[in-house]
Amino acid sequence: MRTVPIALTGFGNVSRAFSTLLGEKRAGVERRYGLRFEIMAVVMADGCLFSNEPLEIGPAPEKASRQIEKDPAWRPGMRISDIFKPAGRGGCLVECTPSDLKTGEPGLSYIVIALESGWNVVTASKGALVAAFRKLKTLAAGQGMSLKFSGATAAALPTLDVALVSLAGADIEGIQGILNGTSNYILTKMAEGLSYRQALQEAQGWGIAEPDPSDDVGGWDSAAKLLLIANACLDTDFGLSDVRVSGITGLPADYAAKAAAAGKSVKLLASAFPKKSGRGWGLEVGPSLLDDSHPLFHVNGTEKGITFITDTMGSVTLTGGRSNPRGAAATLLKDLINIYRDPF
Amino acid sequence: MRTVPIALTGFGNVSRAFSTLLGEKRAGVERRYGLRFEIMAVVMADGCLFSNEPLEIGPAPEKASRQIEKDPAWRPGMRISDIFKPAGRGGCLVECTPSDLKTGEPGLSYIVIALESGWNVVTASKGALVAAFRKLKTLAAGQGMSLKFSGATAAALPTLDVALVSLAGADIEGIQGILNGTSNYILTKMAEGLSYRQALQEAQGWGIAEPDPSDDVGGWDSAAKLLLIANACLDTDFGLSDVRVSGITGLPADYAAKAAAAGKSVKLLASAFPKKSGRGWGLEVGPSLLDDSHPLFHVNGTEKGITFITDTMGSVTLTGGRSNPRGAAATLLKDLINIYRDPF
Repeated sequence: MRTVPIALTGFGNVSRAFSTLLGEKRAGVERRYGLRFEIMAVVMADGCLFSNEPLEIGPAPEKASRQIEKDPAWRPGMRISDIFKPAGRGGCLVECTPSDLKTGEPGLSYIVIALESGWNVVTASKGALVAAFRKLKTLAAGQGMSLKFSGATAAALPTLDVALVSLAGADIEGIQGILNGTSNYILTKMAEGLSYRQALQEAQGWGIAEPDPSDDVGGWDSAAKLLLIANACLDTDFGLSDVRVSGITGLPADYAAKAAAAGKSVKLLASAFPKKSGRGWGLEVGPSLLDDSHPLFHVNGTEKGITFITDTMGSVTLTGGRSNPRGAAATLLKDLINIYRDPF
Repeated sequence: MRTVPIALTGFGNVSRAFSTLLGEKRAGVERRYGLRFEIMAVVMADGCLFSNEPLEIGPAPEKASRQIEKDPAWRPGMRISDIFKPAGRGGCLVECTPSDLKTGEPGLSYIVIALESGWNVVTASKGALVAAFRKLKTLAAGQGMSLKFSGATAAALPTLDVALVSLAGADIEGIQGILNGTSNYILTKMAEGLSYRQALQEAQGWGIAEPDPSDDVGGWDSAAKLLLIANACLDTDFGLSDVRVSGITGLPADYAAKAAAAGKSVKLLASAFPKKSGRGWGLEVGPSLLDDSHPLFHVNGTEKGITFITDTMGSVTLTGGRSNPRGAAATLLKDLINIYRDPF
């Protein structure tokens, strides 16, 4: 049995779901993989939960941030570097802070300190990788550490694993994805006849869309995921400004419904394609009209999907994967297991 | 750069496609993975092609078996054990002999000798694993060797990788697959109004169906793939006789066409499901009527697909992947790379 210390950054729904999942899965993970993951710290901006015993973190209380300071394990003023260095190499940072796509903070600083301290990193948060992909990959490689981010690229829908493991040795010639569940839900409802506003309100009512949905419907969430997938799988070094992005807000009111009546489907498609010049890749997010022979035509509602076009293996399409915090938590656990498990 | 010696068993379309592919991909694999795969022997029943230089094997000549004895590298009477032992540990057997689902031979003996000699194994051939799954997995684990068989479980459609890597830590609660392209092609054509006989003849005309199609249309090819996927992913130890198999030959002539008219689709579905008793798994292959909400409903023609239902990640579906010898060869190369590449 190998015991792996975990430091958790962020204290929102995903990190709490991860902690709960780890408790539920403990026995199974130990039996199947010979691994024991122990949360030794939860890192916040102004202190840490820290104990010499593995921490158990329950579901979110009403006022999480006020309650944390009453926790007997709360260490005000304790910083992330106070944890990594004394613990030695080989633990793993599980990064779940909110994504800031411009600065990458606070995740970026956390990830850098972890890698520099000889810790591996799995992250559910896109910000740091979008802002500083090459820097972080280079740092990880230089330190001999793993940096995995399935949770930042469509979560439980496997995208990176498939491109990097299942398609190893094949040349990827194109990528097309429906990478944002919220906008796909809205488009599906618009195809059924709802207006954009009605569909958005319905999505917000179900908790599918955020109160401010602009990242999702504006295409930026899809663009961030697309560029991470491209950078990881195509050895590119794109930033967010390299992606041509248009969202679904400007579509004519009856565009999706008219398309549906004509047997077609409107999707917010995120695409990576070789440039016509033959050199380099173009990245684009925008509403696209698919006909029913397209492998993503039938991906509806909050479902996501991705198609990889290859030279030797044909085209491989994945659809499904749970999008909620529990799905994201399961994706973090998956990346963790794959870092530490024995080869098979 | 790490050089990996390869011994190839079988001299048919897949092993030749593999050799060709290796030549084409050499520079890319060296650059991307730091790996150089060199074919040092092709093992036949009555001798080996063997040279101290890496072998290059071209496309199949008209009369392959007669020509091989004229090759300057032909060593009559040389046996597989003459290759592994002197070469030391750490090479890889690439097993491409025809599948005998009952005895597993000749692949079974080749794989045992390879593992006992400290060689890893990747195989495109189902026979040995269907006949002796537990024995081979136990032997591989005891020797600390990898035994990979993506090529035996729907080839370029990633099945094992997704279950073992992308769904690591999740509990698989059910598997459903369309694992045989020939029978799916025939069913697709029958849905369009052809009779079974017409559809089969068309498939044979295109080279999709074998002259003797009984393994494909009888469900045995699907059953073999299903039990390998189940044994690998569910830690079971099933043999072919544990799978309830019915094929597509006994379907009423207009069954698929009537289903299509009613908005449904007939698929030869391979399923693993928990037994109603709550203990253990049931495996079944048989024609199933799917409605259009099923994720495999739209898998038509020679395409394959698989759905994994999990506890934490929802349901994940894969479709596509090339089925021809080149697709199988690319799948062998993928498994090879994943055995020897550095962790990432």
